Parts: sequence; C-alpha cells; structure tokens
Amino acid sequence: MAERIRNFNAGPATLPLPVLEEIRSELKNFRGSGMSILEVSHRSKWFDDVIEDAKARITRLLNLDERYKVLFLQGGASMQFAMVPMNFLSENDHADYVNTGTWSTKAVKEAEIQGKRVNVVASSEDRNFCYIPKNIRPTPGAAFMHITTNNTIKGTQYHFLPDSGGAPLVADMSSDILCRPTDVSRFGLIYAGAQKNLGPAGVTLAVIRQDMLDRVPDTLPTMLKYTTAADKNSMFNTPPCFAIYVVGLVLKWIEETIGGLGAMEARNKKKADTIYGYLDSTDFYNATADPDSRSWMNVTFRLPGEDLEKKFVAEALENGLGGLKGHRSVGGCRASIYNAMDPEGVDELVAFMKEFEKKNG
Amino acid sequence: MAERIRNFNAGPATLPLPVLEEIRSELKNFRGSGMSILEVSHRSKWFDDVIEDAKARITRLLNLDERYKVLFLQGGASMQFAMVPMNFLSENDHADYVNTGTWSTKAVKEAEIQGKRVNVVASSEDRNFCYIPKNIRPTPGAAFMHITTNNTIKGTQYHFLPDSGGAPLVADMSSDILCRPTDVSRFGLIYAGAQKNLGPAGVTLAVIRQDMLDRVPDTLPTMLKYTTAADKNSMFNTPPCFAIYVVGLVLKWIEETIGGLGAMEARNKKKADTIYGYLDSTDFYNATADPDSRSWMNVTFRLPGEDLEKKFVAEALENGLGGLKGHRSVGGCRASIYNAMDPEGVDELVAFMKEFEKKNG
Repeated sequence: MAERIRNFNAGPATLPLPVLEEIRSELKNFRGSGMSILEVSHRSKWFDDVIEDAKARITRLLNLDERYKVLFLQGGASMQFAMVPMNFLSENDHADYVNTGTWSTKAVKEAEIQGKRVNVVASSEDRNFCYIPKNIRPTPGAAFMHITTNNTIKGTQYHFLPDSGGAPLVADMSSDILCRPTDVSRFGLIYAGAQKNLGPAGVTLAVIRQDMLDRVPDTLPTMLKYTTAADKNSMFNTPPCFAIYVVGLVLKWIEETIGGLGAMEARNKKKADTIYGYLDSTDFYNATADPDSRSWMNVTFRLPGEDLEKKFVAEALENGLGGLKGHRSVGGCRASIYNAMDPEGVDELVAFMKEFEKKNG
Repeated sequence: MAERIRNFNAGPATLPLPVLEEIRSELKNFRGSGMSILEVSHRSKWFDDVIEDAKARITRLLNLDERYKVLFLQGGASMQFAMVPMNFLSENDHADYVNTGTWSTKAVKEAEIQGKRVNVVASSEDRNFCYIPKNIRPTPGAAFMHITTNNTIKGTQYHFLPDSGGAPLVADMSSDILCRPTDVSRFGLIYAGAQKNLGPAGVTLAVIRQDMLDRVPDTLPTMLKYTTAADKNSMFNTPPCFAIYVVGLVLKWIEETIGGLGAMEARNKKKADTIYGYLDSTDFYNATADPDSRSWMNVTFRLPGEDLEKKFVAEALENGLGGLKGHRSVGGCRASIYNAMDPEGVDELVAFMKEFEKKNG
C-alpha cells in the first residue's frame, strides 16, 4: 500500500498533510522548549501561546464578537447532549429539539433521562432521516432550540437556519463546523467534537454566548458547568493539550493555506458538486439524501445490492481509497469529504466509481 | 538550549524518549494503514489493536483478575471526583474520605456539591498536608473509602493501605500509578489522569471491580455512568484515540524496556533515595514532607528564602533542568521524578543542587 491512502472515514477523519508534517517536525522539541508538546505544562507560556492562538483563530474565522467565548471541553458531543439540558434548562422551562437522525435522537434522550421537558418540534424519522424538515415551528417560550447541523450517518445537512421564535439556537456542529462562513449571532451555543472537521479525537470545541452562562445552576458538579471552563480559560484542570494544539494547526491551515472560510466554502462546494453531479448522472449509484438536504461533508449512497457494496468498498481500498463503508446502523456506502479532504481525493474517488460501474454495471 | 531538557514538571510531564521516537516514526502512516493514528477510525482493526494491547498491558502490570475491567475515560481526575459519588453513593449511604491535600479536598467538595453524605475520617490539614495520617478509622457501613495515593502538590505518598473496615478503596492514583507493584484486590476503583505517569493529557485510566458497577443508578446521564464505558469497551462514543495510543506505548516501555513494575520500583526507589539522601545531608535545602510520607514522585523542598528559590529555578533551567518551581498554591521548589524520568536526570539535578549550594550557601 502507498505511504498514504485517501481517507474517507467519517471520524476520526483525514487531516491536512502539512499539519501532520508540522507535528512531526517539532514532536521532540516544541518551539525551542526542549520538551515535546506532549510534555509541556498547561500552565507554561508554551501552552498558553497554543491555546490563545487557537482561540484567536476561531474568533476570526467565525467572526465572533465580544459576547462569545471559545471553550475547549472533553467527552465529545455525547457529553454535550447531557450538559446542554443540565446547564440551560430549569425545572419549569422547556426546550425545542429538531430530530434529524441518530445524534439528534441521542441528544433528546439525554435531556429526557434528566427529566427535562423537551418538545420534538420537527423530525424526519418518517423517511429514515433522509431530509431536513422544512416546517420547523418553535413552541412559545422555549429556552432554546437544539439542532444537529450535519448528520454524519444519514448524510444530510441544514442549508438554512430554522425559525426558533427568538430562542437561542444550540447546535451540534461536530461534522460541519467551519465548512463555510456561519452567522453565529443566532446561536447561544455551538459545540463540535474535533475529530471530523477540526482535528483529532479528544477535544470538543464550544462557542458560547455569555448570556447563556447566566442560566447555569450553581449546584452542578464543577466539571459539568460551562461557567467553569469559561471562568478558567478551559484550564480548571489539565486540558487535552495535544488535541488543542493539533486543532490550532488545522485552524492555521484553514486561515493561511486555504485562505479562510470563503475559500473553504468554494472548495467544499466544488467537491460536493463533483460527487453529487456524478451520482445524479447514473442509475448505478443512488444518493440517499433528498437533493435539498444533501450534506457537503458526508455523501451517502447505495449500489444495486449489498454484495456489490461490499465489493466496492474492498476494491476501493485496494485502490488507495479507504473508509467508504456506510455506518453500521444504515449500511450502504459513505464518502466523508470534510474540510481536510483535497479536491483531488474526490476526483480520484469519482474516477474509481466510474471504472467500477463500467465493470459491474 | 539543547535539543531536550530534563523535564521535572508535575504534569503534563516528561515521556520516555523512545516513545516520542516511535510516535514520530509512524505519524504519517500508522502500521501500514496509510493513515496517521490521528486519522484512523476508532471502529477499525487498527485502533482495536491499540486499545486491546493497552488493556492487556494494564491487566498484566497490575495483575488484574477477571473481576476487573480497564476503562479509558475523559475529563481527568476532576471528572472522577464528580462521577465517584454520583455512581457509588446512594441517598441513604455515606462514604469515607481521607483528606491529604488539594486534590482530596476537591474530591470531598464534589461529593458535597451533590448533597452526598461524606465523612472526612482523617486529614493532615493541621500541618499543611505534609504527612499521610496514620490513624485512619473507617466509619461503620461506609460505601467506600476514598484516598489520594500520591499528593502532587504537597509531595506526600501513601506507603501503606489504610484500614477501610471492609469497604472497597477508591483511589485517585493520578500521580503514582504503576510506580511499583500494587495489590489491587482491596480497590473497587482506581483512576488516574494519564498526564503524569502514563502518557499525555487527555485520557483518564480507570480500573474498576465489576461489583461496583451494580451500584450505578440507571438514571444518570449516559456519559457519566461507569457502566457505559464498561459495556461499550470505552467506545460508546469516539474515545481520545491518540492519548490511548501513547499510553499504550508507555506501557510497552514499562514492560519491555524497564522490565515491569518490580524493576520500575527499584528504579524509582533509587531516584528517590538519591535526591532525599542529598536533601537530608544539607541544611541549605529542606524537604517539606515528613520522612515516612515522602513521595517517590514529587519531591518538594525549600531553599533559605524565596529570592534564592527563584534564582535556583531560573539557573536550573539555564542548565537544562526545567519545571522545578513548586505549585503556585504552596511556593518553594518541586522536582517531579515520575516513571519516565531517567536516574541520570536525577543525578544531574543533584549535581546542580550541590553546585548551587556551593555558590549560594
């Protein structure tokens, strides 16, 4: 096998090669410290530079005003499913959730486990979550509306922001954060596990509007309060230093190599158009998501029969194209083409798909 | 500055150089996968091998029988302070805690925040935590007894196991796990943030006796139940893959390079004897912990005056000896000499200390 494959895994996912090169180059001696980034104290100026740089880059890329704080947490989106209702939903309040797939369903479940009042105001479960609902109607007085902006497993993505009736949006953006410019002003909280579009597994980015912090009950365990990370600059205790460092390198790559989120949007749109354009031109492959809800990040498709799908995944890997198997809960095929996937990788995939169709169609 | 310094930081802390070399050598192509370990799916055979190898090594090193499960969690010891009472202490039960410093105090606080009944059965607060209490008397019927086996900030360590009246011990071993052979049979739970003796920041090892899992209430949020990690092999959601991988490499180094925990104990004892032996031979430096409670991992000491301490820390760094400043809450100096610190590093430190005394004594 070649030194590197094209990695279409859904997460952990491919990283920009220059990021891996940079990690490698300074792994034994981080910027003159005489220590690895794996070894420097989180209370040192070395790490302080790392975390401040990462925060500044997020602030620039998302165009955050002074109301927003950038936090680095642990536990992935699944921990956020629990923390969101714990922090923002008091006994007498209720929240609106939109259910667009596996992860939204889990978010609802974690609120319900806590006995919180949740209204599922819209769902696409009727058609196995192959679309984003259009008629999303908020309930009056909801504390927030929770959405999952991209659905990794089902291959759907919001291309609009729903009417939340004035309530702040709370969004799981684990699989599409920074894929294009985002108007953050309507969001009270955005959270994202890093391992898809931001870096390696092991750190969760949170962007929180400070008025949300006023809702946090004093009675929560310290590590489960957003106020703890906000007050202590994400360093109440030792943070996942290395993962934050790699996220910083990915952010630098977005800003300095790609040229920011406008350029990232153009690049991602081109990749999505290339693969969906091909899928729409043939009957051999079938895209599973409705056209207006298709994800730019996770392209889900079927072949005529499961045996052919298995053969496709195996032969693709032999050709240096890895991770194309669909999620175990839905089957089929999936190409995850996050920010770090080069357009050339998508071109190679489409060329292989054409060849495979020719031989097996 | 030289390529690498001797790193006496308390955590994140020094790692074995062969571990850094191995990470570097396979960073772009992990064991023929064509992907970085930062990019491989946690559902892949590549990562499965990593986590199973790490679990097997912990099982061998701690001589665990089939009652114990090895888990990898997130959030550090601070998250465990919250999870322990949440999982193991029902409304009608009470638990015993021994307070030996900053971290024990925090553990007690997190139980109390939840309204749990906690008895502090012994404390060394009367002398600023410079010793481990001897007369630890359990209360009848305690659900568990919580101890902090090594106190990073105060430089003390248990060299015995307290009488817990038959209750399982629950131990924060963040800063001395695997420093020597341990009889695990009295422990219901051992937990340890990795960033001192095990690897990089970002993963928490937990070793749990399965009967403890029977106590876990169904009503807890999914990510906060030990049963979730136990049932899902620490992969309910994406684990901190890279940190687990590095922990695995450190464990391999302990087994295959050092020769196991017996050899590790001899090595650590020698390092501790070298530095405490010198501290006891001079009046210029003063070890702060009582002799029978001294930590093998964190050696805390004072010089005659804070100005001299500042000078000591600065000149040490100029001589390639870093991280010798005491914790900001106590001042003074501290040399953390965890598993990964070579005996040669301690020899170099003592040589510098002698030289410094000669010039300034």
